[in-house]
Amino acid sequence: MPTTVAAPRTSDALRPVRITRGWSAHAEGSALIECGATRVLCTASVDEKVPPHRRGSGWVTAEYAMLPRATHTRGEREAARGRQSGRTQEIQRLIGRSLRAAFDLDALGERTIQLDCDVLQADGGTRCAAITGAWVAAHDAVQWLLAQKKIATSPLRAHVAAVSVGIAGGRPVLDLDYALDSTCATDMNVVMTDAGEFVEVQGTAEGAPFTHAQLLALLELAARGVRQLIDVQRRAIATPLP
Amino acid sequence: MPTTVAAPRTSDALRPVRITRGWSAHAEGSALIECGATRVLCTASVDEKVPPHRRGSGWVTAEYAMLPRATHTRGEREAARGRQSGRTQEIQRLIGRSLRAAFDLDALGERTIQLDCDVLQADGGTRCAAITGAWVAAHDAVQWLLAQKKIATSPLRAHVAAVSVGIAGGRPVLDLDYALDSTCATDMNVVMTDAGEFVEVQGTAEGAPFTHAQLLALLELAARGVRQLIDVQRRAIATPLP
Amino acid sequence: MPTTVAAPRTSDALRPVRITRGWSAHAEGSALIECGATRVLCTASVDEKVPPHRRGSGWVTAEYAMLPRATHTRGEREAARGRQSGRTQEIQRLIGRSLRAAFDLDALGERTIQLDCDVLQADGGTRCAAITGAWVAAHDAVQWLLAQKKIATSPLRAHVAAVSVGIAGGRPVLDLDYALDSTCATDMNVVMTDAGEFVEVQGTAEGAPFTHAQLLALLELAARGVRQLIDVQRRAIATPLP
Amino acid sequence: MPTTVAAPRTSDALRPVRITRGWSAHAEGSALIECGATRVLCTASVDEKVPPHRRGSGWVTAEYAMLPRATHTRGEREAARGRQSGRTQEIQRLIGRSLRAAFDLDALGERTIQLDCDVLQADGGTRCAAITGAWVAAHDAVQWLLAQKKIATSPLRAHVAAVSVGIAGGRPVLDLDYALDSTCATDMNVVMTDAGEFVEVQGTAEGAPFTHAQLLALLELAARGVRQLIDVQRRAIATPLP
Amino acid sequence: MPTTVAAPRTSDALRPVRITRGWSAHAEGSALIECGATRVLCTASVDEKVPPHRRGSGWVTAEYAMLPRATHTRGEREAARGRQSGRTQEIQRLIGRSLRAAFDLDALGERTIQLDCDVLQADGGTRCAAITGAWVAAHDAVQWLLAQKKIATSPLRAHVAAVSVGIAGGRPVLDLDYALDSTCATDMNVVMTDAGEFVEVQGTAEGAPFTHAQLLALLELAARGVRQLIDVQRRAIATPLP
Amino acid sequence: MPTTVAAPRTSDALRPVRITRGWSAHAEGSALIECGATRVLCTASVDEKVPPHRRGSGWVTAEYAMLPRATHTRGEREAARGRQSGRTQEIQRLIGRSLRAAFDLDALGERTIQLDCDVLQADGGTRCAAITGAWVAAHDAVQWLLAQKKIATSPLRAHVAAVSVGIAGGRPVLDLDYALDSTCATDMNVVMTDAGEFVEVQGTAEGAPFTHAQLLALLELAARGVRQLIDVQRRAIATPLP
Repeated sequence: MPTTVAAPRTSDALRPVRITRGWSAHAEGSALIECGATRVLCTASVDEKVPPHRRGSGWVTAEYAMLPRATHTRGEREAARGRQSGRTQEIQRLIGRSLRAAFDLDALGERTIQLDCDVLQADGGTRCAAITGAWVAAHDAVQWLLAQKKIATSPLRAHVAAVSVGIAGGRPVLDLDYALDSTCATDMNVVMTDAGEFVEVQGTAEGAPFTHAQLLALLELAARGVRQLIDVQRRAIATPLP
Repeated sequence: MPTTVAAPRTSDALRPVRITRGWSAHAEGSALIECGATRVLCTASVDEKVPPHRRGSGWVTAEYAMLPRATHTRGEREAARGRQSGRTQEIQRLIGRSLRAAFDLDALGERTIQLDCDVLQADGGTRCAAITGAWVAAHDAVQWLLAQKKIATSPLRAHVAAVSVGIAGGRPVLDLDYALDSTCATDMNVVMTDAGEFVEVQGTAEGAPFTHAQLLALLELAARGVRQLIDVQRRAIATPLP
Repeated sequence: MPTTVAAPRTSDALRPVRITRGWSAHAEGSALIECGATRVLCTASVDEKVPPHRRGSGWVTAEYAMLPRATHTRGEREAARGRQSGRTQEIQRLIGRSLRAAFDLDALGERTIQLDCDVLQADGGTRCAAITGAWVAAHDAVQWLLAQKKIATSPLRAHVAAVSVGIAGGRPVLDLDYALDSTCATDMNVVMTDAGEFVEVQGTAEGAPFTHAQLLALLELAARGVRQLIDVQRRAIATPLP
Repeated sequence: MPTTVAAPRTSDALRPVRITRGWSAHAEGSALIECGATRVLCTASVDEKVPPHRRGSGWVTAEYAMLPRATHTRGEREAARGRQSGRTQEIQRLIGRSLRAAFDLDALGERTIQLDCDVLQADGGTRCAAITGAWVAAHDAVQWLLAQKKIATSPLRAHVAAVSVGIAGGRPVLDLDYALDSTCATDMNVVMTDAGEFVEVQGTAEGAPFTHAQLLALLELAARGVRQLIDVQRRAIATPLP
Repeated sequence: MPTTVAAPRTSDALRPVRITRGWSAHAEGSALIECGATRVLCTASVDEKVPPHRRGSGWVTAEYAMLPRATHTRGEREAARGRQSGRTQEIQRLIGRSLRAAFDLDALGERTIQLDCDVLQADGGTRCAAITGAWVAAHDAVQWLLAQKKIATSPLRAHVAAVSVGIAGGRPVLDLDYALDSTCATDMNVVMTDAGEFVEVQGTAEGAPFTHAQLLALLELAARGVRQLIDVQRRAIATPLP
Repeated sequence: MPTTVAAPRTSDALRPVRITRGWSAHAEGSALIECGATRVLCTASVDEKVPPHRRGSGWVTAEYAMLPRATHTRGEREAARGRQSGRTQEIQRLIGRSLRAAFDLDALGERTIQLDCDVLQADGGTRCAAITGAWVAAHDAVQWLLAQKKIATSPLRAHVAAVSVGIAGGRPVLDLDYALDSTCATDMNVVMTDAGEFVEVQGTAEGAPFTHAQLLALLELAARGVRQLIDVQRRAIATPLP
C-alpha cells in the first residue's frame, strides 16, 4: 500500500505528496514519488564496483531522464538525438551530489549505489521530487545491503529532501508546479537535511534580480517544505515493504 | 479504474493482462499495459506534421526504450551512451510497422501519431506488450481527434495485438516470460488483426532450427493468444475514460 | 573461375545466381554473390578473440553496409552521418543470427568469425544474398582454419541460405527484385538449412495483412528457392579455390 | 594598456584582478580577465539572428571551454572526445543566464550576443572570472552596436559580476583559488548586480552540510567581493579602447 | 570489356593498371580501377543541387572509404565506430580538391557531381587510384549530362591523375605498393594534369627528412607515372561504354 | 620578457614573429607564437605513457583547435558540434608528423609529448605558426625532462619550422596572411629542418594548376622563410625562461 499525504494547498503549502516504495520488482530499492501531478520513478541499484577515481571508498551517483511525453508537448527522446541535454546533465549532477551528502561513503564500502530518476509525468519540481524520492530508494537499497549482510551498519547519516520555492506576483511561494513556475521571477531549489542544514541552494533570477530580504524569505519557506517532505519520507520507511 | 483480466497459467495460457487507459495526463492517448510482471507505458502524441516523404497522407511511428533498471541487472542508459542499440531500433521499427497496419493512413489526414513505448518493468514479451498497449493509446488519440472534430470518421480499420510463442522443452508455449524465454529453442513474435490475419511473423531459431510442423503449432497458439488480447483491448475501450 | 547458375525467370524461379569465391585477396574467406543485378561482397575474417560475454566458446558475427551509390539514387554514407541506420542494424543482426545457426560454436574454439557483407550494387534481396554468400565465405574461413591446423574438424553443421518471397498482384512470387518488391503487399525473408528446417522467418504485411493460406504458400515457395541456392553453394565449394 | 587592480590577499580579499579589453582583433567585444593565475579570454560576437524560440526580441548566450593544458594535468579535449562534459554545459548555462540578467533583451533588438569564454589558464574560480569578463566583452559589443548605429540606446541595464566563496578550516574565505577550493567544505558561486541584488546563488556542501549562519556569512563576503569586481569593470570601461 | 594495361615492373614502372567503366548499373558514371592488387570502385552521382555556399556555380566533391577487410587485417567499420578517421577525411578532401581542378565549375551549372571512392581491396596507393579512377567516373557523368542535354558543352577542362612515389633503399621508386610503402623513408603523392602541371604535391618524410635533390627526382618520376596513367584514362574513354 | 623579431614586410619577407616562452604556468613547455596578427598558444605536456602500438619507444602527437572567435566571423565550436572537422584533423596530423621528425623517439624513452596548439587569433598561416611554436614548447618540455633527470641527453635532433608560400598575382609570396591567402592561386605549406631538408611539402592549386618552375620558386622562398623562423627559435631558447 502506498504511503500518502494530502495537504490543503495555500502559497506556503506543499502539493499532495505520495511515496510508493517497492514499485519496481527488480531494483534493490525503488520508490514512485508523486508531488501533485509530477510523478518520478526512482530506483537504486547496487553495483559491487566503483569508478577508478573512487577506489577505496563507496560511491553514489545518479541519472535523470524524462519520458518524451511526460510533458505537455512531446519532447525529443535523448537516446534518439544521441546526447543528453545540458539541463539533464545539470540535474543528474545535482541529484548525485545531494544524495552523496546523505551518505558516509567510507561506511558504504567499495560499491556504488546507482540512482535512476525517470520522470513519468511532469508538472514542475521534477528535480526536487527526484531527490526526495531517490533518498527513499537509496534507503531501501541500504536495507537490502544490511539484510544481505554485505554491510553491518547503515552508511546513511541523514535524510535529504528538496523543494522548489519562488517569487510569484511579488510573494514567496512554496513547491512550484508548472503553471506557477512559468510566472515566477525567481526560482530556487533547496536541498536540506533533517538537521535543517543546507546541502544545496540554487537560486536563479529569471527576470529581475532578487534582494537579500527575498532570499531569506525563500529559504525560510523552503525549510518548512523540506521538514514536511522528510516527515513523509519517515512515514514511508516506517511501514514494512510490500 | 483499470481493466483487468487474470487467467490461470498453463502452457497455452496468457499471463494476467491489465490495461489502464489514461495513465498519462498530458498525452492525447495513453495506456499502461501489464502482462504478468512486464509493464509498458504507451503514449500516443498527435503532431500536426508528417515527415517530408509522407506528404499528403498520415503517418504513425513509434519509439521504444527500457528504463535502465527495468531489468534484473541494470542496463546502460541509451541517452548516456549516446545511441540506441540495434535491438531498440529493431523493436521500434516493428511497433511502427505493426500499428500502421491498423490504420487507413489517408483517412488519418496529414498528421502523425507518435507512439512512445517505455518499458517500466521487464519480464519478457516487452515488444508484444508494447504493440498491444500502443494500439489502445492510438485508439484513444483517435477518439481525441474525433472529439476535437479534426477528423470526422475513425481511420482505425482493425485491432492489432501481438504475442510471443516459443518451443520450450520440445513443446509450444504461449506468452514467454523472461524465465521461459531463456530456455526456448525457438522464439516467435506474431502480430495479428482481429480478422485473424497476420501483420508480422518473426520466428527465430535460437539453437536448433525448427520444423514446418513446429511452425504451424506456434502460429496456432499465437492466434489463440492474440484473440484473447484483442478481447482485453475491446473491454478496455468499452469503458469510459477516467 | 566463378560458379554460375542462370535459370529462366518465372514467378517461381530464382534470378540468375553467381558466386565467385576468393574475390578478396586478404580475407580468410570471401565470396562475391550476384543475384540478378544485386551484388554483395562477403568476407570472413578470423579473429583469435571473442567478446567478453562469449568466453569459452566461439562466436560468429556480421556487419552489413551498402555503398552509397549501390542504389538507384545515392544514399547518405553512414560513416559520414555518424551512425548506422536502424535498417542496417536489423539486417546485420539477422545475418549474424542466421550464420550462427550453421555453426557448432563450441567446436569453433574461442575465436570469432567476423562476416562483412557489403552491397556493391542493390536490386532487391540484399540481406538474403548476404546470408547465402556469407555462408560460402564462412565455409572458406573454416577451410583456412583446418588448413592452418587451428581446428581438427569443421564446426560447420549445416548449409544456411536465404530467399525473399512476396505476394504481388495477389500471387506468391519468389526472389523479389527491387521492382517487384515495390509492388508487393507482403514481403517475407526465409532462412533455412539444407535439412529443410527454418532458421528465421520474417514476414511483413506492407499493406493488407496476409492470411494463413498465403503464409503457407509463401513458405513453400521459399523452401524451393532455398534448395536451389544451397545447390549453388554446394557447386561453388566443390571447385578448388583460384 | 591593460587595466590592473592588485590587492593584498587576506581571507576576505580578492586575488589581483586584471581586465584587458580589446584582446581579440576580430570580435565586436573582447576581454582577457586574469584573477590571480586564472586567465579567461572572453569574446562577444554579434549575430543578426536569434534562435527560433526567441523571435521578436534579443538573445544573449554563452559557451565555455578550457584549453586541455589550462589545468595542472592535461585534460581530454572535448572536441576530440566528441561531447561537452556535464560540468561544461552547466557552467555555460550559468554564464548565459547571468549575462541575460544584465540586459533588456527587447531593447537589444532581434539579434544575438554570443559570448565565448575560453579558459587559457586555470587556478580556481574560472566560471566567476568568465562571468565578470564576459560582461566587459558584452559591454564593448554594445558599444560597437551603438557606434554602428544599429541601436540607439544601450540595452545594458546593470553590471553583473561573480565571485566564489567557501568555508575553509571553518572560516569563510573569499575568491577561492585551486588550492583553497580543494580544502573547502562548502563552495558557493554568487552572481550579483551593481545594485547589490542577486542573479544567481549556487551553494554546495562538498562534505558536511552548512548552516543558515554560515550561508549568511558567505553571502556577505561575496557581496563585498562583487562590489570590488564591479569597480574593476567600471575602471576598465572608463579607459578608451586601444 | 575492361580496358587493361599491363607493364613490366621496374622501380620506375607502374603496376598493371586496369580501368573498367560502367561497373555500377545505377550511377551516372562509374569505374573500377585496379592498380596491381589495389581495387577501387569509383562512382559519380549527379545531384541537381549545390551546397548553400556554392550557389550560382557547380560543385564537385568526394567521399572515400575502405571496406573493413580491404586490408591485410580487418579494420573497424567507420559507420559502426560512429565517425570517419582523420585519414579518411584527409583523403576525401584531397580527392575532392583534385577533381575540382579538372572542372570549369561555372560551366557545370548549379549541380553537384558527388564522387564515391570505395576501396574494395587495398595494396598501397589507394588515394591515387581513387583520383585516377574518379576522373573516369566524372567523365562519364559529364557524358551522361551531355546526352541528357542538361549541358551543351563539357565542363571538363583537363585530365587529372595521381601517383605515389617514394624513396626506398635510398632510391626513388614509382607507384608504391603496400610492401614498398612500409619501407619508404619518404612518401609523396603527386596529382597532375595532362598539361604536366601540378594540382597537388604532398611529400612526407617518414623517417629522415629529404633533400632538394631527392624532391626533384621524385617529381620527375611522378610526372612520368602520371603521363602513363592519363594514357590509360584516354584509352578507357575512347571505347564505347558496355 | 617575450622574444621579438620584427622585420620589414615585402613579398619575400616574413610578418613580424614573436615567441613568448613559458606563457602557460602548468605545462612542462609552452610558447605563445605571434606571426603578424596570428596568435597560437602551444603547450607541451609530458605523459609517462605511450599508445599501445608505440610500446618500447617514445611518442610525440598533437592536437589543434581554433577558438570560435579567433576568426573574422565566429565559427561553430567543435566540442559543441560533437566532432572535429576534417580540416582540424588534417592539420593536427601534420603538426604531429612534423614534430616527430625533430625527435629521436627511441631516445625520448617510453613517454609521450602531447602538443596542444590552440589558435587564439587567426590571420592566415595558423598551421605553420603552430608547428614553429610547438617546436619551442617541445624543446622546453625536453629541458624539463633533463632537469628532472628523467632523460640524460636530449632526444631533439633538429629544429623544425614551417611557413606558407603562395602565388598571388602571378608572383611568389612568402608567409600568407588571410587577405593574401584569399587571393592566391596556389598555396603551399613547407616544413623544414635547420639542415635545410624537407619534412613536409604540401602544395595545392586553388584555381589553375602550377608549373614546375613555379614550384621551384616557391620552395626557394619557403627555405628562406624557414631559415629566419629557425633563427627566431634559436634566439628564443637562448634566453633563460622567466
